[in-house]
Amino acid sequence: MSERADPMADGDETVTAAHGAGGERMRELLSDAVVPRFRGDSPADGIGIDALDDGAVLPTGDGALVVTTDSHVVDPPFFAGGDVGRLAVAGTVNDLAAMGATEPETLTCGLVVEAGTPTAAVESVLGSMAETASAADAPITTGDTKVMPRGDLDGIVVNTAGVARIEEGAELPVAGLSPGDRLLVTGPVGDHGVALLAERESFGFDADLESDVAPVNDLVAAAVDAGTVTAATDPTRGGVATALVEFAERSGVGVRLDERAVPVDDATETVADVLGLDPLKIACEGRMVLGVDEGDAEDVLSALRAAGGTEAALVGRAVAEHGGRVVVDTGIGERYLTEPSGEQRPRIC
Amino acid sequence: MSERADPMADGDETVTAAHGAGGERMRELLSDAVVPRFRGDSPADGIGIDALDDGAVLPTGDGALVVTTDSHVVDPPFFAGGDVGRLAVAGTVNDLAAMGATEPETLTCGLVVEAGTPTAAVESVLGSMAETASAADAPITTGDTKVMPRGDLDGIVVNTAGVARIEEGAELPVAGLSPGDRLLVTGPVGDHGVALLAERESFGFDADLESDVAPVNDLVAAAVDAGTVTAATDPTRGGVATALVEFAERSGVGVRLDERAVPVDDATETVADVLGLDPLKIACEGRMVLGVDEGDAEDVLSALRAAGGTEAALVGRAVAEHGGRVVVDTGIGERYLTEPSGEQRPRIC
Repeated sequence: MSERADPMADGDETVTAAHGAGGERMRELLSDAVVPRFRGDSPADGIGIDALDDGAVLPTGDGALVVTTDSHVVDPPFFAGGDVGRLAVAGTVNDLAAMGATEPETLTCGLVVEAGTPTAAVESVLGSMAETASAADAPITTGDTKVMPRGDLDGIVVNTAGVARIEEGAELPVAGLSPGDRLLVTGPVGDHGVALLAERESFGFDADLESDVAPVNDLVAAAVDAGTVTAATDPTRGGVATALVEFAERSGVGVRLDERAVPVDDATETVADVLGLDPLKIACEGRMVLGVDEGDAEDVLSALRAAGGTEAALVGRAVAEHGGRVVVDTGIGERYLTEPSGEQRPRIC
Repeated sequence: MSERADPMADGDETVTAAHGAGGERMRELLSDAVVPRFRGDSPADGIGIDALDDGAVLPTGDGALVVTTDSHVVDPPFFAGGDVGRLAVAGTVNDLAAMGATEPETLTCGLVVEAGTPTAAVESVLGSMAETASAADAPITTGDTKVMPRGDLDGIVVNTAGVARIEEGAELPVAGLSPGDRLLVTGPVGDHGVALLAERESFGFDADLESDVAPVNDLVAAAVDAGTVTAATDPTRGGVATALVEFAERSGVGVRLDERAVPVDDATETVADVLGLDPLKIACEGRMVLGVDEGDAEDVLSALRAAGGTEAALVGRAVAEHGGRVVVDTGIGERYLTEPSGEQRPRIC
């Protein structure tokens, strides 16, 4: 068998951390390597892998199945405000919700653990998954566990897939924005990414930092009940910047963002400032960015606040000009908002 | 944040390779740590995580959703007869088929890659997934990609979840055997595990060894069309031994296995013999063990052979005595067949 070529031997081109960072390089990898191979699998009347949305929408005749998956490799696996188990469940519940599926049928639980990991740590992650799933009313009904030898894996990898059924037309695609739609965020941005950085770097001024990781399917449900939601996505890797660029590019509209309207917690803003990071580009794990029909925007905002999103805010609007781009009103001028293209801190989720 | 206890710090009890081997220790981990936390999530009229079956069955009113997941950590990721991509797709298709869902609605594709992995290797895995999914008529419609820093992960981890819809009553639970039912395997056993061992150890007599990794949903469909299939499972970790012990324990029947009737390829038998391994305890990745109503057994066997399972064989039967145990007729006597309890070679799938 030594005669077969070994694809794992060093190649000219290799995958880099930037390919996993959720920005431009990652989109290149997906567009070049992943999408072409599975494009033919995309459903004719639904949403497939070529849409690079938060999940797939598969018409079933009387509605659709929504399916999504995420692997979570966060380092460290336990952090202020959560752990990899809570992150996995919240991430998958939120991906379903971002597609319009706020009542998960089931989640799956795939664990990969290194031999030598304390059993108590695994039990803690499982307990956290159970608690988060229960809070989101998302039953976990099947799973898989693999053990890798010591040295083969750093940490705990948790994959969760989510499945939900929705009524016909209930999906919320990234490509659904029209000029005039208002944009909302459901709470302060950047807390997850900054809490993780603080956890890893031990800045010393990290006492008030805590990840925002949480399921927000209840907030999306409240928004949908209160008005016409036209688009939704959760601003994880690449933060609000990547979310808005995706909205603009996929919907073929421009986006105007009022930077001063975006809620950012003081502690998060301080750390971001010290590190020279833009809070708009830092991952959230318990937030949603919504596009809402102009006439319903205030009603949806009120509904979000009543449902627990007390710091939800109107932050911008879709416009006919600047097609495919995001313009930030800084208060003293304007700039284009780009998504992060290079290497971010790895293993943020 | 240094005041929080770190669950990843060394504990008295740790996860060991045996916990991932598919045998008794693994079942202990699942029964003690996983099932209690998610038992409440199990559907009243379906099959949940507490059944420890190949997947979940979730009634939907007019039938059921079948959902399954597996993470694949096989080492090396490229081996004779396949790679981690083919393994992942075949494994998930076969888990669905083992639940009676032979027409997958969709699969998900979750990749975790180490920075520095040749892009060509990732593309090769993706190509292999696309090819195997196409052969099994199982569209891949959503996915996720994570990159871990160099040194944090050995190899490529592929998680696949599978979703299918089935008609009411079409599920094939592990617990479905009744005394009198005949047992079939769809082809020679142990090829995957032995091919992997040979790949890693370079025995020198490995030219004829090739993994059996393949989707076999078509064979299960042919069997179901030809007669009453009462139970099904794919003999992966722990091999046919674990599959039959699970049949016996969950169905509350005894199982009599005719050892001489179990097909084993010559090359596989030779290597197993040299290493002192029991082919019945070695993983397959393209085989199914079926329980079939006694009167339909010959028809199902013919159908399997006609559908490409040319070495399918009747290998035993369910009996009323020996409740929960598997008795092997060795030709010169009898022995109880136990599932592997200790450490097997890690990262076999």
